[in-house]
Amino acid sequence: MSIKPRILKGFNDYLPDVMLPKQRMLDAVARTFESFGFAPLQTPALEYADVLLGKYGDEGDKLLYRFLDNGERDVALRYDLTVPLARVVAMNRQLGAPFKRYQIAPVWRAEKPGPGRFREFLQCDVDIIGVADLMADAECLAVGAAVLGALGVDDFVLRVNNRKLLTGLMLRLGIADGEPTLAVLRTVDKLPKIGEDGVRAALAKENGLGAAAIDGIFEFLALDPAGLAEWFDADSPGRVGAAELQTLLDLAAEQGLADRVEVDLSIARGLDYYTGTIYETFVRGMESMGSVMSGGRYDTLLTMFGGPPVPAVGISLGVDRLFALLQKQGLVEPEANPARVLVTVFSTETRPASYRTAAALRAAGVPTEVYPGSPRMKKQFKHADRQRIPFVVTVGPDEAARGEVKLKDLATGEQTALTVDALVARLTPG
Amino acid sequence: MSIKPRILKGFNDYLPDVMLPKQRMLDAVARTFESFGFAPLQTPALEYADVLLGKYGDEGDKLLYRFLDNGERDVALRYDLTVPLARVVAMNRQLGAPFKRYQIAPVWRAEKPGPGRFREFLQCDVDIIGVADLMADAECLAVGAAVLGALGVDDFVLRVNNRKLLTGLMLRLGIADGEPTLAVLRTVDKLPKIGEDGVRAALAKENGLGAAAIDGIFEFLALDPAGLAEWFDADSPGRVGAAELQTLLDLAAEQGLADRVEVDLSIARGLDYYTGTIYETFVRGMESMGSVMSGGRYDTLLTMFGGPPVPAVGISLGVDRLFALLQKQGLVEPEANPARVLVTVFSTETRPASYRTAAALRAAGVPTEVYPGSPRMKKQFKHADRQRIPFVVTVGPDEAARGEVKLKDLATGEQTALTVDALVARLTPG
Repeated sequence: MSIKPRILKGFNDYLPDVMLPKQRMLDAVARTFESFGFAPLQTPALEYADVLLGKYGDEGDKLLYRFLDNGERDVALRYDLTVPLARVVAMNRQLGAPFKRYQIAPVWRAEKPGPGRFREFLQCDVDIIGVADLMADAECLAVGAAVLGALGVDDFVLRVNNRKLLTGLMLRLGIADGEPTLAVLRTVDKLPKIGEDGVRAALAKENGLGAAAIDGIFEFLALDPAGLAEWFDADSPGRVGAAELQTLLDLAAEQGLADRVEVDLSIARGLDYYTGTIYETFVRGMESMGSVMSGGRYDTLLTMFGGPPVPAVGISLGVDRLFALLQKQGLVEPEANPARVLVTVFSTETRPASYRTAAALRAAGVPTEVYPGSPRMKKQFKHADRQRIPFVVTVGPDEAARGEVKLKDLATGEQTALTVDALVARLTPG
Repeated sequence: MSIKPRILKGFNDYLPDVMLPKQRMLDAVARTFESFGFAPLQTPALEYADVLLGKYGDEGDKLLYRFLDNGERDVALRYDLTVPLARVVAMNRQLGAPFKRYQIAPVWRAEKPGPGRFREFLQCDVDIIGVADLMADAECLAVGAAVLGALGVDDFVLRVNNRKLLTGLMLRLGIADGEPTLAVLRTVDKLPKIGEDGVRAALAKENGLGAAAIDGIFEFLALDPAGLAEWFDADSPGRVGAAELQTLLDLAAEQGLADRVEVDLSIARGLDYYTGTIYETFVRGMESMGSVMSGGRYDTLLTMFGGPPVPAVGISLGVDRLFALLQKQGLVEPEANPARVLVTVFSTETRPASYRTAAALRAAGVPTEVYPGSPRMKKQFKHADRQRIPFVVTVGPDEAARGEVKLKDLATGEQTALTVDALVARLTPG
């Protein structure tokens, strides 16, 4: 009896018509990372469970795919790329600084699947390890902007904030460090979703803040970046945050990003490990999709495995969200076959000519498929059509005798007889 | 108390100095696959256990990473890429034929780790689904040869055989189908390792064959391809196998691969699912590393989930083995940083000029890193040296005032002052 073929809920097959354009997107992302000197790192899918446990909060621990392996080792599938990075840094002090790495890899979370929420999904992180200088923070903005540019996304804004400003704010309002502060930040983070009235109500009800504290928060949110430092006491971390934010803006301007970067004091990010710069990125007209690229500075996180403190800053691309956005903007060409040309096979006699034609095209950098078999021409053309291969080349006995081939452009229906050299010249890219 | 950072045995971190050249190798492999019209497919790491169980023999079942997930589902990490492919084909009949896909992805096997044997490793498969014509078998040879060529491996031989010849041989010798035949084939497969005497002894002792049968096997192995068909009775599957093998050789010759392909009647492949063509690939002078690329035709395997029979043929690259071989042949450039240029930062004042220089290089396609900070020049140069970045560009106040930069070639020590335009022209690839 055969088993019913089926796939786990929250997991996906990516068939060629999706995977091919997605792979092209990921390749462009990786090339852009490398153009800034970020190098690839690969870590295992499975880790010792205790390496991951306690790093993502109680909720995160419950979402781990955790089990005993055949050797009774307590193991779990990776939940993100940051904790494995911290492990690698702790185990490889020889890497030195600056250590700039990117990693594009799946992670696994046993969440309830929903629209756009999967149990297996790709994460795509760039991080600069070992650099306290804000040039590293600015470089994450620059590489992020370059990635969006490489993908054809032109109208976006990088929103920046600094966690030290928020710490200064909480000190001024007398809100305790740790969980109370984090809870307030999580509420403030909902501003784009629930608006000022919603946030005010939640701060009162869920966070138990009085009217003065709530007003103080909104006074802060309305501050002009220029007047930010003066709002804080001279010894407040808010002053440091204001100075850092200004330096970041200057560094962004030096890289031609002044128009791309905006201060947004309401950005808090859910995660509690940011210590300085924080970023989010929105595509204009697509703000409802949420941030497509987020991150920040986390100068204490990498000590989770002991050792000396290691400053770090990074940014993470939401690749699935970005791919959905590219599709919506019409920037994704649906393709099921990487070949630009199908060379048909008329008969066993003309087959060598078909092979030679395909080899000449490939040598010129034109991806070319030879139909594997020689059924009726109609069937071979139909294959090109279904797979959206734009050109079909036929080499019938007449063409072969004349040393020619016939090129058909499936989009226009136009047919041309030409030599193989002329064909190659015509279809060679660039 | 912090947890000791450590990695599971049989699993690897690939740090940039290994991962960067390996990623370049994998990109070249993928590009070559695509140049023949193979498209990428991605399937989940986790599958329902029963989808995988019983497909790899009892031994394989034991090596699965299998567990109950949080929803008490019996799941397992994928063990290879072929069974998930069969599942995808069974669930997506709309894919039609020919369906040509490649997949490069990790698989997990709870084997005893040893030198070159890991619990997580990459598989790299190309398959042509839905095509009975031997042109598909020949295409796997052609794409495999193209991959090795793209990697700079020039001296290799594709060894081919046909499973129907072996079936004909067993029939002639009166060895029963199924396990007895498979056991004999597994013994014959050891020929390169244990030699003729070793195989003869094992066939007698382990397989219980008599002297006549053993002589028959070696008579077969010594046959000239030209006389192969006549060795079998007219109605033997061996005759079909001989004809198929001849057709494959003709097709290889039509694609200019005559010198690359050799018949080797001793190739049996351990796996029991091959039905026709089988291949192995050896790099000359490196035969002891074993086959770097193997596969064959499996016309019945894809029915494991029911449904009509679907012919299929494929080839699998041993990417880790191939990478080790490229390293041994000196074809791997050790690199820890994709940047070709490090632009140093002399001071805050000259920083904008450094950024502009880097942007100009990147725009011309030259991967360029800007040192994130401005410590002493010596430290910045040392970073370039450690990371094997070949060129360092400095923009001191004097150069900046003259609109120039200074280029240092770290290999020769040569220094040149030149304009940014001249720098870009000098370092632009191609």
